[in-house]
Amino acid sequence: MSNLTIDAERLWGSLMETAQIGGTPDGGIARLTLSDEDRRVRDWLRAECDALGLSLTVDEVGNMFATRAGTRTDLPAIAMGSHLDTQPTGGKFDGVLGVLAGLEVLRTLDAAGYQTEAPLMLVNWTNEEGSRFSPAMLGSGIWAGVYSREYGDGRTDPTGDSFGASLDRIGYRGKARAGSVSFGAMFELHIEQGPILEAEGVRIGVVQGIQGMRWFDLTLTGTAAHTGSTPMNMRRNALLGMAQVIEGIDRIAKAHENAVGTIGFLDISPNSHNVIPGEVRATIDLRHPSDEVLDRMQAEVEVLVRKAAQAVGLEYRFEQISRTAPVIFDPECIASVRAGAKAAGYDTRDLISGAGHDAAHAAAKVPTTMIFVPCKGGLSHNPAESTLPGECAAGAQVLLEAVLDYDRRMAEARKEVAA
Amino acid sequence: MSNLTIDAERLWGSLMETAQIGGTPDGGIARLTLSDEDRRVRDWLRAECDALGLSLTVDEVGNMFATRAGTRTDLPAIAMGSHLDTQPTGGKFDGVLGVLAGLEVLRTLDAAGYQTEAPLMLVNWTNEEGSRFSPAMLGSGIWAGVYSREYGDGRTDPTGDSFGASLDRIGYRGKARAGSVSFGAMFELHIEQGPILEAEGVRIGVVQGIQGMRWFDLTLTGTAAHTGSTPMNMRRNALLGMAQVIEGIDRIAKAHENAVGTIGFLDISPNSHNVIPGEVRATIDLRHPSDEVLDRMQAEVEVLVRKAAQAVGLEYRFEQISRTAPVIFDPECIASVRAGAKAAGYDTRDLISGAGHDAAHAAAKVPTTMIFVPCKGGLSHNPAESTLPGECAAGAQVLLEAVLDYDRRMAEARKEVAA
Repeated sequence: MSNLTIDAERLWGSLMETAQIGGTPDGGIARLTLSDEDRRVRDWLRAECDALGLSLTVDEVGNMFATRAGTRTDLPAIAMGSHLDTQPTGGKFDGVLGVLAGLEVLRTLDAAGYQTEAPLMLVNWTNEEGSRFSPAMLGSGIWAGVYSREYGDGRTDPTGDSFGASLDRIGYRGKARAGSVSFGAMFELHIEQGPILEAEGVRIGVVQGIQGMRWFDLTLTGTAAHTGSTPMNMRRNALLGMAQVIEGIDRIAKAHENAVGTIGFLDISPNSHNVIPGEVRATIDLRHPSDEVLDRMQAEVEVLVRKAAQAVGLEYRFEQISRTAPVIFDPECIASVRAGAKAAGYDTRDLISGAGHDAAHAAAKVPTTMIFVPCKGGLSHNPAESTLPGECAAGAQVLLEAVLDYDRRMAEARKEVAA
Repeated sequence: MSNLTIDAERLWGSLMETAQIGGTPDGGIARLTLSDEDRRVRDWLRAECDALGLSLTVDEVGNMFATRAGTRTDLPAIAMGSHLDTQPTGGKFDGVLGVLAGLEVLRTLDAAGYQTEAPLMLVNWTNEEGSRFSPAMLGSGIWAGVYSREYGDGRTDPTGDSFGASLDRIGYRGKARAGSVSFGAMFELHIEQGPILEAEGVRIGVVQGIQGMRWFDLTLTGTAAHTGSTPMNMRRNALLGMAQVIEGIDRIAKAHENAVGTIGFLDISPNSHNVIPGEVRATIDLRHPSDEVLDRMQAEVEVLVRKAAQAVGLEYRFEQISRTAPVIFDPECIASVRAGAKAAGYDTRDLISGAGHDAAHAAAKVPTTMIFVPCKGGLSHNPAESTLPGECAAGAQVLLEAVLDYDRRMAEARKEVAA
């Protein structure tokens, strides 16, 4: 326990202040990556870092790293952060909370004159959302070496504007080579973007990892025909086959603990009131924390699709279109979050993140974990996204305690090794 | 048996000749009602009627009635016909065959110098398709008194053009009051627009009536949520509920002989790969020759919808959006078709029309039936619509024989009554 308390009002004030940058009339934020709004919120963050005397490094893809020195120079920095860009119809908390809570931790330490042993680092990753330039988590992905800088620069938005040109335009192309800025661990505070914490009345989610995700494109092909003049026994109704697949995906997901499985998108042809659907295309989304379970689910889905197609007399095409391996967060980082939540006096619940985060790329290089706080109704990527001031403060306090706990334990471990 | 044989080549020649009017490069016809193409095909028909010395009456909504006198003047005319307008992506046979086969019957009688006892009448109904001006079967509907002339005139196409103005523009607003042109019976030859005759290798469908049809709008409402972070047991997946309804509709239709039931149209919100569908709207299409069976099917669908909504935790809105009563064709007309097919030497099969036709409106006023011929793959409203020359000729020959049989029997009956 640190005896330090973050300033809940100051944190909330910063959340509401920056929410004006790209703020929408419905209370959300439209702050697309590398837009003028993104430049303005970056300028705001830079000024706040300057005010705290932090040393700011911007890398060549616009990732911002602000460092507060520790008492020791032999220890790598402990990073906190997330992203300040939003969806076109984004809310006020997704990503922003993780950056501003990290800032609030640094402000609290500064006000108390408290110095950690390791340096602390505040990170704002470029283009987490991916809604202007696909793919999502591009800045952290380039930092982690998953994508090249050239690949990033060449990504274009729907108007043809490139990532690289947009980055130059807003003046946030730094000199540091992507990936050259290093740190020793990463803690990302984020809203849950799901309903579990709220439903169970738990304040803090201790995130164990990020689900693996597999997407498949399924096309079922039958025969389009008149709904009135085609007898039931002469039909090849592609939507009937798809209905069986939709129900089967739900059954398969429910049969595996912690799994989710969904068809959220259908393209029906011709999608006319009086024509039996001749072709239906779907995206199947399967997620689970274990690749082994995903293998089993995928095999079951393949059987399901084959049987549904046979039963209705359809042809089918089934292909994987994306695959993300599960991420398992670092046990030491998780232990620090648990200790931090205990020190701060909050109930916790272990969670697996269903959504992707910059922490997934960070975890490939350094010990990493995440802290989740509730969001109303599990709603995210929506102007109505809502997390209460007390919940934001709780998350920031746990972030502070977790970072201090990790700092103490790592410093101790390095002393022992040195001894 | 008449000893008269229609001229198969002449019929096919007229089908191919008129198919050039609005003909499309893919072999179909785009001849929207009251368009310039419609005017041109009407002019063609008028010239052919003139050549046969027929007396042409056009009513105030453009329906064309060409009469060939009989030997007796006390008998009402026996009508044959269908429509010459097509869908925007129409084929060469839907409607057109019924008019040109009627013309071929009159040409055959003319060439043979054969005179029926009752007058014969060839009819071309205005706007059967309804694809430019909704509703379908408008000309015959106004003739039957289902709609007023004013209602018809006021119908507008997607560009804002009205039915009345378009009719005036092409010069086919006749002087005869709608409904004032009367006849005593109606035979409509048409392609099946379904797969049964082709699949069973039967040449002639003896149509018993037209299915009753009920359309319902169903909206299932759940909660849109992230596919990754929303556990299976906390979902309200509207598409999952709709999948159960799609399967249930299929089951219900299969459980009632001669029933069909379909969902061909879905509107999924938000229809995004990684969002659980929050709302899904569907049109449910139920058809059966009996209103009593439709009542039972409707009741079963209502239970199905309630149970599916309950099972998934959804709200629902279920409302009837249209209802067409079944049509039962006239037994005397049907007997004449059966006798005609026998005389012409073709196998027959009793059928119920799954699609609507002008004959449905005619049947409300006078004895009516239809004759179906096969169409390849049951395909219609499609440039690939295909009926073979021999099939067209068979239909026309049966039409000829049926009309002559009906003429003889009616003339006989009237004599007996007079006696």
